[in-house]
Amino acid sequence: MTDTPTPDLAHDRIRPIRFSAGVLYLLDQRRLPAHRVEEAFTSPQAVAEAIRDMVVRGAPAIGITAAYAMVLACQQVVGQAPSDWRQPLILALRDLEQARPTAVNLHWALERMRRVIEACTTPEAALLAALAEAARMLTEDIAANRKMGRWGASLIEPGSAVLTHCNTGSLATGGFGTALGVIRTAWAEQRIQRVFASETRPWLQGSRLTAWELLQDGIDVTLLCEGAVASLLRRDAVRWIIVGADRIAANGDTANKIGTYSLACLARAHGVRFMVVAPSSTLDLSMPSGQDIPIEERAATEVLGFAGREVAPPGAGAWNPAFDVTPAEYIDAIVTENGIHRPPFSAAQFSSMLRCEE
Amino acid sequence: MTDTPTPDLAHDRIRPIRFSAGVLYLLDQRRLPAHRVEEAFTSPQAVAEAIRDMVVRGAPAIGITAAYAMVLACQQVVGQAPSDWRQPLILALRDLEQARPTAVNLHWALERMRRVIEACTTPEAALLAALAEAARMLTEDIAANRKMGRWGASLIEPGSAVLTHCNTGSLATGGFGTALGVIRTAWAEQRIQRVFASETRPWLQGSRLTAWELLQDGIDVTLLCEGAVASLLRRDAVRWIIVGADRIAANGDTANKIGTYSLACLARAHGVRFMVVAPSSTLDLSMPSGQDIPIEERAATEVLGFAGREVAPPGAGAWNPAFDVTPAEYIDAIVTENGIHRPPFSAAQFSSMLRCEE
Repeated sequence: MTDTPTPDLAHDRIRPIRFSAGVLYLLDQRRLPAHRVEEAFTSPQAVAEAIRDMVVRGAPAIGITAAYAMVLACQQVVGQAPSDWRQPLILALRDLEQARPTAVNLHWALERMRRVIEACTTPEAALLAALAEAARMLTEDIAANRKMGRWGASLIEPGSAVLTHCNTGSLATGGFGTALGVIRTAWAEQRIQRVFASETRPWLQGSRLTAWELLQDGIDVTLLCEGAVASLLRRDAVRWIIVGADRIAANGDTANKIGTYSLACLARAHGVRFMVVAPSSTLDLSMPSGQDIPIEERAATEVLGFAGREVAPPGAGAWNPAFDVTPAEYIDAIVTENGIHRPPFSAAQFSSMLRCEE
Repeated sequence: MTDTPTPDLAHDRIRPIRFSAGVLYLLDQRRLPAHRVEEAFTSPQAVAEAIRDMVVRGAPAIGITAAYAMVLACQQVVGQAPSDWRQPLILALRDLEQARPTAVNLHWALERMRRVIEACTTPEAALLAALAEAARMLTEDIAANRKMGRWGASLIEPGSAVLTHCNTGSLATGGFGTALGVIRTAWAEQRIQRVFASETRPWLQGSRLTAWELLQDGIDVTLLCEGAVASLLRRDAVRWIIVGADRIAANGDTANKIGTYSLACLARAHGVRFMVVAPSSTLDLSMPSGQDIPIEERAATEVLGFAGREVAPPGAGAWNPAFDVTPAEYIDAIVTENGIHRPPFSAAQFSSMLRCEE
């Protein structure tokens, strides 16, 4: 069996998803940065739970993880009778699909796996095909991220400070990252002078994951609370806010981590440009606008405390949407592996870029 | 000696500052809501340290605390020779003045104490005068807050949802609160249907203090992360964002807890009105605009961790301004005990209101 490839660059060492000898290993992102622990998975049900519990997070990483979960599902049905083996795979697809609602990459990755598996006539063939497809998806994701990195970096003037939100790096993808891939590339090209990262409450992906990743790769990072961003932008150093995406509608409306829409409003108010970086699998051209994107609401406890420690008094309520939608009019560029999309965004523009690639 | 008065209303039970039998008691706001502990103080040096360490916080509460610290300073010089007693008081004034730079109420309160003490010829007379002045300041503060509550509540249409930031309640003042006093009053008048409070990173005054205070008084509260505010405002329920102030310049520019300026930008972008509520002692008419207000930067560790627990990896930097300045053009009303100030704000407008009161 083909194991997942190891990274080839010294400054890009982190891989959140690893498949080896029939076992899926996920770097447990709930425990970073204090503990670097891989969890091993052998069943698709356990992987679906890990996605829900955010052992792995980030739209592209979730998609690839779900693809490997289908490899695990295929392993489980090897040797079963011809009449029995498809049903557990259909259930696994459904279970995984429902693990998190907002990111479209999960759906996209499972559709790819479904097509590949449906074309097979035996569970053994399905396993081989599924493994090849998942490995291809991972390899393609990293290659796409490197392309996005080059496209996005080309927009950044040398000497710029940039701000990013949440974690869109190696940890959120197969490797290298989307928005953080642009920052990695632009840093290597000496275009970026300073990287700011918002801490990203409630899950603190900025403080815990982005800071850790950038420091691993020798890129200095300055964290700040979301409330301090407006003051930072008023100081006139930040040229671009660069974020990822969980789903992009046909008109360019972009669902991403809660706080993104706030940053987009503040960017506009301060003349700072706003870049969305995501693989084309994040485009959902079936949605005319962002208003129909399902927004996951997570448990109030995530806001009322942190990492199991209570902060608010008993009886306090909390509203905890995990994502928000940034209207297209706030976005200056959407970067995919196919190039730089500029407003006005449209399904036609996105589609023509997709066709160019094919 | 006159001890501090106890509150007279059942729904307004919290007092952060208490002076009794020569000892100043401060409710330790670092330990709320898990622990309700008063710390006892008998020296002005210890009080200055408590202000720096945020045992007590909130501009009006800091002013009153510093006034009582001067009572403690007077107690220490009772019985000293005529030539010796003034010098320790001057040192105490200077030490307290430097405890926190942004709030002007600290300066204002210490100036009142300085004038009262300077008029005395013996330390015994200074002690009596200082105690009377501090008690007057506390009583006046609560009375001013009740007036602000009525003025501010009159602006809120019945059925509104409101959002507040940080803690501006009983804990931040002598009692009753500024912005939270408006919310208390409007809630009692059934004008407010729902109260949202931003958690207020990094110190979590919203989650820890505002939620606790409102629940003590039977007012439901829904917390949210700063990053979720823009999404909330887009939902079109919030009519007013209501905040306090640490210093208001002559043109209406307002320094307040970090995150306030962000909320003001978001309010403007969503057609939500923005109210600042503060006693007239917060006005600094010697400052033409907000650009000269000193902004305290606090330790990076406050951002790098959460509630005393380390979160970010070693090596990550952080920018931690404790306050920001909201330009006057974002403010729809500044409410003081003297009434409702409306834009365009000016020293003349603020002064004429001050004169009306005198």
